[in-house]
Amino acid sequence: MLRQYETRRYQMPQEEIKALVREKRAELVRQQLLIKEQALPVFVLVEGWGASGKGTLIGNLIEDLDPRFFHVKKMNAPTEEAKRHPFLWRYMEVMPAAGQFLFLNSGWLSETADAMADNKIDDVSLEQRLRQIRIFERQLKDNGYLVVKLFLQIPPEEQKQRIEKLMEDKDTKWRVSEKDLLQVKKREKYEKLYDRLLEATNTGYAPWNIVDAADKKQALLQALHILTIQINQAEVNRKALPEILYKDYPLLKMPKLSEVPLNQSLSREEYEVRLKELQKKLKKLHNKIYRKKIPVIIAYEGWDAAGKGGNIKRLASALDPRGFEVYPIASPEPHEKSRHYLWRFYHRLPKSGHIAIFDRTWYGRVMVERIEGFCSENDWKRAYNEINEFEKELTDWGAAVIKFWVHIDKETQLARFTERQNTPEKQWKITDEDWRNREKWDVYETAIDEMIEKTSTENAPWFIIQSNNKYYARLQAIQIVIDEIEKRLALPPRKK
Amino acid sequence: MLRQYETRRYQMPQEEIKALVREKRAELVRQQLLIKEQALPVFVLVEGWGASGKGTLIGNLIEDLDPRFFHVKKMNAPTEEAKRHPFLWRYMEVMPAAGQFLFLNSGWLSETADAMADNKIDDVSLEQRLRQIRIFERQLKDNGYLVVKLFLQIPPEEQKQRIEKLMEDKDTKWRVSEKDLLQVKKREKYEKLYDRLLEATNTGYAPWNIVDAADKKQALLQALHILTIQINQAEVNRKALPEILYKDYPLLKMPKLSEVPLNQSLSREEYEVRLKELQKKLKKLHNKIYRKKIPVIIAYEGWDAAGKGGNIKRLASALDPRGFEVYPIASPEPHEKSRHYLWRFYHRLPKSGHIAIFDRTWYGRVMVERIEGFCSENDWKRAYNEINEFEKELTDWGAAVIKFWVHIDKETQLARFTERQNTPEKQWKITDEDWRNREKWDVYETAIDEMIEKTSTENAPWFIIQSNNKYYARLQAIQIVIDEIEKRLALPPRKK
Repeated sequence: MLRQYETRRYQMPQEEIKALVREKRAELVRQQLLIKEQALPVFVLVEGWGASGKGTLIGNLIEDLDPRFFHVKKMNAPTEEAKRHPFLWRYMEVMPAAGQFLFLNSGWLSETADAMADNKIDDVSLEQRLRQIRIFERQLKDNGYLVVKLFLQIPPEEQKQRIEKLMEDKDTKWRVSEKDLLQVKKREKYEKLYDRLLEATNTGYAPWNIVDAADKKQALLQALHILTIQINQAEVNRKALPEILYKDYPLLKMPKLSEVPLNQSLSREEYEVRLKELQKKLKKLHNKIYRKKIPVIIAYEGWDAAGKGGNIKRLASALDPRGFEVYPIASPEPHEKSRHYLWRFYHRLPKSGHIAIFDRTWYGRVMVERIEGFCSENDWKRAYNEINEFEKELTDWGAAVIKFWVHIDKETQLARFTERQNTPEKQWKITDEDWRNREKWDVYETAIDEMIEKTSTENAPWFIIQSNNKYYARLQAIQIVIDEIEKRLALPPRKK
Repeated sequence: MLRQYETRRYQMPQEEIKALVREKRAELVRQQLLIKEQALPVFVLVEGWGASGKGTLIGNLIEDLDPRFFHVKKMNAPTEEAKRHPFLWRYMEVMPAAGQFLFLNSGWLSETADAMADNKIDDVSLEQRLRQIRIFERQLKDNGYLVVKLFLQIPPEEQKQRIEKLMEDKDTKWRVSEKDLLQVKKREKYEKLYDRLLEATNTGYAPWNIVDAADKKQALLQALHILTIQINQAEVNRKALPEILYKDYPLLKMPKLSEVPLNQSLSREEYEVRLKELQKKLKKLHNKIYRKKIPVIIAYEGWDAAGKGGNIKRLASALDPRGFEVYPIASPEPHEKSRHYLWRFYHRLPKSGHIAIFDRTWYGRVMVERIEGFCSENDWKRAYNEINEFEKELTDWGAAVIKFWVHIDKETQLARFTERQNTPEKQWKITDEDWRNREKWDVYETAIDEMIEKTSTENAPWFIIQSNNKYYARLQAIQIVIDEIEKRLALPPRKK
């Protein structure tokens, strides 16, 4: 891609460039108002050679923009915290809210190129990363983001000269990194790396734009040109419905909810003995995953009054409190709502070696949001695949992902609702909304059956917890967590 | 404090302890419901000797609690990110929301003791820290938090034995840190350090509780006892109004708004020439503070239509976009509202070497929240001192804190409102709320005069920007930022 580009240079008189830059800048300012109005999040990734002028270009791009509605982030080497999360986590963290611009100075392209240059990544991990990047960018676009990607290209001699010049002055010397020097020394090797990465992530929904950065003014004009065109195009594109993908994640055959037997019985005595045993076992495993730095994600969904809270409590009390978090998930807050719907879950991912327990999850998208109309039909239909992709990213990262549907039948729910209503200390647990949801039982059941059918992947299967008998359900959940962690521990250790 | 305590040991029969633990645990479970209902945030700091059983104690305390409403954090050595923020920043970050428990395994006490043992802190910085800790805890309490502090005490021989036992087993050896070994080796030195710190932070609003941790069951009982009593007490305490403090921050004599002349004039031509000069100067200074790792906080308040946005824009466009952030501040989101009102500003502090520009600020407390009744009278009256303390912490950390009141007169506001109303591209900038606020001009003016009078400290003064003429105002603001940064750069470099 890069070599090919070299032949396409053109020259323009300085005066003409100046006039055009002025014009395009004014257009970008008008577009910023529109972006705010239309709640469009715009994400601009600026990659390129060392000393190609990424920082300067960004500085020039934003010059007339309202600083309350854009952010610029320089992505340095990942911190210790970032290293204990999935590769794309730190990029998801900074994704702009609706109506905001984000300019990223370097990103996953250079992070990956550097990892390759240092031989820190094997082919399997590389292919995983590239797939994740493509998925990430497609999901952003499908969820209303505009993704603009620029690569600043300068010829080898030019790069060499610029870096030598920076090195000469003690005021600018500190800005030259080891990587920059390496790029000059091994330019051809790096060219091949970049080419491979650019091609692998050059997609219809997020194409690369190679900017000729040998001349700074021309580079600015090109970047402004690309940016304004793509923003105009985004308005149009947003009206088109994204494609609903059914990707090839191997699905497990799952029963319908109505086929799940709920007649288990278990005495309190037996329960207490077994609970102690299982908790003891789980405690030991927690220590192991902590030391082997394996992340564990446990997702709880279930009917109201199915016993999720009590179930989580018995699970959690077997765990070392320094190594887990429970996240009760309610409706999203404004800053969460104005981002990709998976953002708030990404944000709460455990770091490696820790456990995150979600009390309600990202599956809200295909249940309550679907049924109450909080998202469009296209949104929730697309979500099955998006969620499968999300969970695949987690298990590729090395996580165990365990998903529980805590199941009861309609009569049991009624009995528990009635008991809550009649017991003063439990009344806070029952609301009018619970009764309203109960009226929609059948609509929910259809949605849940579809959800379980379409998202029980081999890597992140659903487990239906039979919770008419709460004792039985609690033992069942802990047993499954133990089994799944043991399976995960039995896998060969992962390379980076 | 520690030595004195040794004499106060007592023994109790095991059976009696068991029964009491059961009873206190049940009480804590009942209290958890109450805490949730009353939206009380409870913060439990567990400090103590290495191997005194802090983790185990916390594990035992939470055993019956609902894991959705508590968190446990182990505070390790501060990360690189934390080191570029004020000392207490990472503790503020984890402060619990209303209705939540937070158990902190080690905190500022051990962090400070370790810094002292390593000779990494001089006396001036130590005194600053201790003052900040006292202020922090008082502010938490005054803002509705319960702060419970435990110190787990074990005798020297006991600590030595426990650590030796941990070292023997390869499964537990990794849990012994360098610091633990150092404590055993230099127990007496550490005892003196701890004593000094305990005494300096032993206050009426957040007293230390020394727990005899030689026997784990007894320690649990003591901790449960302390916790349940203090929670009961908190309910009562909350009804009492916190004292309104006027601390000895040297205040600058400031004019009333009505005394500020607004008749400046400046031609567009002169403005443009001067703006370029000032921006160039500021650009250079930005580079300097980046390299000297000085944090800069610029706070903008002002009348509606006073020209804050345009002012910020001219300031920001002189800055390297990788080194600053603009934060538009609206009404708090739910997760912000359920915490200390300064939390969301703490959270947005720049890291050292960066600039944060706040478009509206923490002064909302003594303006809109006061006037609209979003907080109690005691709350906003207390806030002057709380804010002075907050800003003192920032400047003690090494920050430059620059506060602007962007001022216009009532007629100018009317002219600008009318122009916005009549210009289609500007209509989005004017709302009914702006007109309603305008009706309260006089009430606001009184509040603003009081705010400027009570919070113009020597370390963080207010600057009144004369903005009837926007050109004048923009140059004025940039000039002040330049002056203040230069003053800051002239100070001797800070020790840690």
